[in-house]
Amino acid sequence: MAQDKSETEGFSAEGWTCPLPLRDYPAIVMAHGGGGKLSADLVRHLFLPLFANPALDALDDQAVIEIDGARLAISTDSFTVSPLFFPGGDIGSLAVHGTVNDVAMAGARPLYITAGFILEEGLAMDALGRIATSMAESCRRAGVQMITGDTKVVDRGHGDGVYINTTGIGIVPDGVHIAANRAKPGDVVIVSGEIGLHGITILAAREGLGFEADLESDTAPLNGLVAAMLEVTREIHCLRDPTRGGLASTLNELAASSGVGIEIDEAAVPVPPAVAAACEMLGLDPFYVANEGKLVAILPEEHAEAVLERMRSHPLGRKAAIIGRVVEEHPRVVVAKTGIGGRRVVDMLVGEQLPRIC
Amino acid sequence: MAQDKSETEGFSAEGWTCPLPLRDYPAIVMAHGGGGKLSADLVRHLFLPLFANPALDALDDQAVIEIDGARLAISTDSFTVSPLFFPGGDIGSLAVHGTVNDVAMAGARPLYITAGFILEEGLAMDALGRIATSMAESCRRAGVQMITGDTKVVDRGHGDGVYINTTGIGIVPDGVHIAANRAKPGDVVIVSGEIGLHGITILAAREGLGFEADLESDTAPLNGLVAAMLEVTREIHCLRDPTRGGLASTLNELAASSGVGIEIDEAAVPVPPAVAAACEMLGLDPFYVANEGKLVAILPEEHAEAVLERMRSHPLGRKAAIIGRVVEEHPRVVVAKTGIGGRRVVDMLVGEQLPRIC
Repeated sequence: MAQDKSETEGFSAEGWTCPLPLRDYPAIVMAHGGGGKLSADLVRHLFLPLFANPALDALDDQAVIEIDGARLAISTDSFTVSPLFFPGGDIGSLAVHGTVNDVAMAGARPLYITAGFILEEGLAMDALGRIATSMAESCRRAGVQMITGDTKVVDRGHGDGVYINTTGIGIVPDGVHIAANRAKPGDVVIVSGEIGLHGITILAAREGLGFEADLESDTAPLNGLVAAMLEVTREIHCLRDPTRGGLASTLNELAASSGVGIEIDEAAVPVPPAVAAACEMLGLDPFYVANEGKLVAILPEEHAEAVLERMRSHPLGRKAAIIGRVVEEHPRVVVAKTGIGGRRVVDMLVGEQLPRIC
Repeated sequence: MAQDKSETEGFSAEGWTCPLPLRDYPAIVMAHGGGGKLSADLVRHLFLPLFANPALDALDDQAVIEIDGARLAISTDSFTVSPLFFPGGDIGSLAVHGTVNDVAMAGARPLYITAGFILEEGLAMDALGRIATSMAESCRRAGVQMITGDTKVVDRGHGDGVYINTTGIGIVPDGVHIAANRAKPGDVVIVSGEIGLHGITILAAREGLGFEADLESDTAPLNGLVAAMLEVTREIHCLRDPTRGGLASTLNELAASSGVGIEIDEAAVPVPPAVAAACEMLGLDPFYVANEGKLVAILPEEHAEAVLERMRSHPLGRKAAIIGRVVEEHPRVVVAKTGIGGRRVVDMLVGEQLPRIC
């Protein structure tokens, strides 16, 4: 075929050789998508060197770019949760909330969202209708418009009912500069509520563990809570929603990006009794369990009480708590003071604790 | 669990009932992703009523929104092509070009792209490396920056190596107003080159049909060609890349959106001999075969020759041709004058001709 060969010159995919830190894994394992150390390795050693640019290199959960003077926050996420429907939500609401939240974590006001559906042949039309209805409801709740979408169908057995990708676009207000690398020694660490609900709910629903009745995913759009916090002060340094990898991985990412240490008071972290009981039974640590309606904020101590008070007056921040602070000591390391007065290092998630929770 | 019930009130997913035109299909079939009539039914009767807003309702392959005075074109697409590697490209280059092209079809200059990967457990790291390298090369060629991404892993058997979603963002230049509903009687229809190469290449590679050596996908970024065309005139009414569903479905979509008829001179449509031969052997119509590096333009006759000349001087438009015109007669219907002087109606693709080609 007479093709324009010059157009494909320089194409070097054949020359790709696996970088050293990835060589222990010649094939993809579940943990490469778990939000822990292997996920980070894949991003740092495979994707970043190929696509390097300032927006990507910041390694935030969203990119902030400037177009004609407006600062836009853009985030993309694919959702593969199993089961598709679970107490408190479904893959549709999760797909809207997850991306709205990643945009909001830049302090941005999410405006628009897109959806890419990968449907498995044989998916019940009724199930798709319920999922789409739930997405529409979540869009209304979050105040975002679904502006474009795409639908592909894969052969039976090559999907899992439905996978959904959402991409969100928001505007960062003037004076707001929130990024993972802005935590400073002396800053206070706040979590917006009880942790572990989403991950344990999914696990219980999937495995039929018998305590589903006590649990409900916390999936929710956090843009309203973020807007309320920014009304108190624009001096918020970091915001992140502790999804895959849980609170522990999020704190480690923020400590690493900012080059600071973080010290947590374990007893101050709100863990609901049902999550604590489930974790004890299953041998899990709630610090590593995913959340889908919680955020971690790092901000100067002088604003902490006022922000905390405002959060507690919001339906999604009623159980917000100060859980620790940023320190100069042990940079890039998160340390927890335990209930009995000891100290333990809280590491990044290694391996895969709970697959397919989002 | 004490959850904020008020936050989920109004959630009506349970109440969803399948609208009439979807009821013949109680479950998803391959053709719902084929870019033809069933795809259109799914969009019109399931998604549109739920998410209605002006940007979405336009039913273009991209949404155009205004933020702080800038007009942005946004497009999203998921790619599930099988096989992952094929003559002329791979799922990575396809995922970049496909979204770059959808943004460019608004006349926009694509600037940024995002990527969401759904990886199947067991995918060779080497294959992922080659795909990502190919995406990076395609980004450079198209002049877009990959600004953020996401990686999920699904259990072995629940994917097909890798699915990729890309979302693209571009700026629409002042004075450019390209949309599917702007075709006017008297306008000329141009296609940028030979049709059918991508679809037949994928089919041949997948089924081992033995004529793979003669074929190569036309996957390519068309933003440079579009920019060249807009240098000649901003008076281009419609642009669309005839991917799933092929040239026939694209012409039908444009005729329907604009409420006009389209008349095509069958003999004027460039079909490469290898595609014609393969189609004859397989009983396919090249008008319905997917392209990934071609565009259809509809514009006033007074600019047609100058635009055509400029296209032919561009590497991706060397075989551009005028193939027909927009007429007042038979609104929403595409008619082809056949080689032997007859006329036939060229309908939208019904069913699924070639699944999983993008």
